Amino acid sequence: MLSNTVVRRIEWGDCDPAGIVFNPNYLSFFDHCTTMLYEAAGWPKQIMVQKFGIVGCPLVETRANFLAPCSFGDEVSITSTVADVRNSSFDIRHELSKGGKLCVEGFETRVWAGRDPETGRLRSTPLPPEVVARFRGE
Amino acid sequence: MLSNTVVRRIEWGDCDPAGIVFNPNYLSFFDHCTTMLYEAAGWPKQIMVQKFGIVGCPLVETRANFLAPCSFGDEVSITSTVADVRNSSFDIRHELSKGGKLCVEGFETRVWAGRDPETGRLRSTPLPPEVVARFRGE
Amino acid sequence: MLSNTVVRRIEWGDCDPAGIVFNPNYLSFFDHCTTMLYEAAGWPKQIMVQKFGIVGCPLVETRANFLAPCSFGDEVSITSTVADVRNSSFDIRHELSKGGKLCVEGFETRVWAGRDPETGRLRSTPLPPEVVARFRGE
Amino acid sequence: MLSNTVVRRIEWGDCDPAGIVFNPNYLSFFDHCTTMLYEAAGWPKQIMVQKFGIVGCPLVETRANFLAPCSFGDEVSITSTVADVRNSSFDIRHELSKGGKLCVEGFETRVWAGRDPETGRLRSTPLPPEVVARFRGE
Repeated sequence: MLSNTVVRRIEWGDCDPAGIVFNPNYLSFFDHCTTMLYEAAGWPKQIMVQKFGIVGCPLVETRANFLAPCSFGDEVSITSTVADVRNSSFDIRHELSKGGKLCVEGFETRVWAGRDPETGRLRSTPLPPEVVARFRGE
Repeated sequence: MLSNTVVRRIEWGDCDPAGIVFNPNYLSFFDHCTTMLYEAAGWPKQIMVQKFGIVGCPLVETRANFLAPCSFGDEVSITSTVADVRNSSFDIRHELSKGGKLCVEGFETRVWAGRDPETGRLRSTPLPPEVVARFRGE
Repeated sequence: MLSNTVVRRIEWGDCDPAGIVFNPNYLSFFDHCTTMLYEAAGWPKQIMVQKFGIVGCPLVETRANFLAPCSFGDEVSITSTVADVRNSSFDIRHELSKGGKLCVEGFETRVWAGRDPETGRLRSTPLPPEVVARFRGE
Repeated sequence: MLSNTVVRRIEWGDCDPAGIVFNPNYLSFFDHCTTMLYEAAGWPKQIMVQKFGIVGCPLVETRANFLAPCSFGDEVSITSTVADVRNSSFDIRHELSKGGKLCVEGFETRVWAGRDPETGRLRSTPLPPEVVARFRGE
């Protein structure tokens, strides 16, 4: 499966009064890592959207487990992997670790979304075979 | 079960280039709603921490479903309810709706955490009966 | 001059490891207060943009003085006032106080911006007399 | 004068519905760049605080000019330079540019702050000669 790793430095503004990363910020990190995963597939998000005529890949479900805290100045490594590819949606798993120790696991379910040509409304659309193949790392 | 509702206005800075709330921001909203739920129980977070000699209630797991987007200027209503109380942890369910329509569901699992008197390390601790009763709405 | 006051509760996620509001967040508060000031003038931002055929009022300069810190749980009051109205730009002054004590002063310079009908580029445009009058509190 | 450059990628979550960076986020970038400037001086913030027995370098004034917008995916370069060093405070100037074009200028005034040994209150303290020399690039 397609995979990509991003290294990130925890900033002062990422952290809360407990001195650790404010949990919702991990989800912002993961969102950016998904962007970088598309790039690793060869398609920066803006290009992917144009090339395949979609509106985007909205998040429909997210989940995270917080195993150990990260603090200001920590250098963390986030590995993002396509976990599953279905007809018109896919899952991404993010593993954030520090010094080799897993700190946060995140899961995203996203939909491949276009516009209904008649109603103009957003709706899920089958992933093109080319995308499926790249996401599967074939 | 203990429950509380907060009304919130979606701000420009909450939203992303798609014109809708950037998903991680919903989790910030929910974090604040949990604070307001403690207050509804009679204990502002700082007082709860002092009164019961804990360090806090760190989040160990979170989950959210995004059913419909919210945009700049929307007034949303978030109802937070204690969903389960166990020996040393508890669940909170958040339902964010707009004009009566459910847009986002969030779930948090939090631990009642104190410090080990010997090692000084954070560890889960049984919830006091008084807290259990209030969380259960008894 | 047009003026409006917003009351706001400092959230956990607004604060940094020093236990006080992370300074850039004050500027997010002020941005929202400017939105509320437009509403106090009778025009929610989306309506103001449509009604007067502008693109928006982009910020071109900002300034803030941090006099005293605010912390988690503080209830602060932010009074926003139009400080100056010029041909195609205007200034807003924000005063954030806690228990009557001034904590942060902010200043924004914004431009009344439309699109050049020929080039399509953003450019400053004279403020309509109706807007000038309302901003001046006439 | 001491100077340091940081390269940063604009993330989706940094941007607002106008498709450009939400202005307050530039100030978060600058805050982090100040941290990196201390490191360039040889002292990560946590070490600087310990080594010189201070509480920190709180921001007392900030100012920014927004000359051109940045958007999702842009790679920007931020050069931070000590602009002035006084007895117990100093100024930092940040210049954010994209493809060689200056987009945002920021200015920070920070105080070298310790605790009054009698009252325990935060107060400005003279910068040690070693710090002055490094900040001046001597």
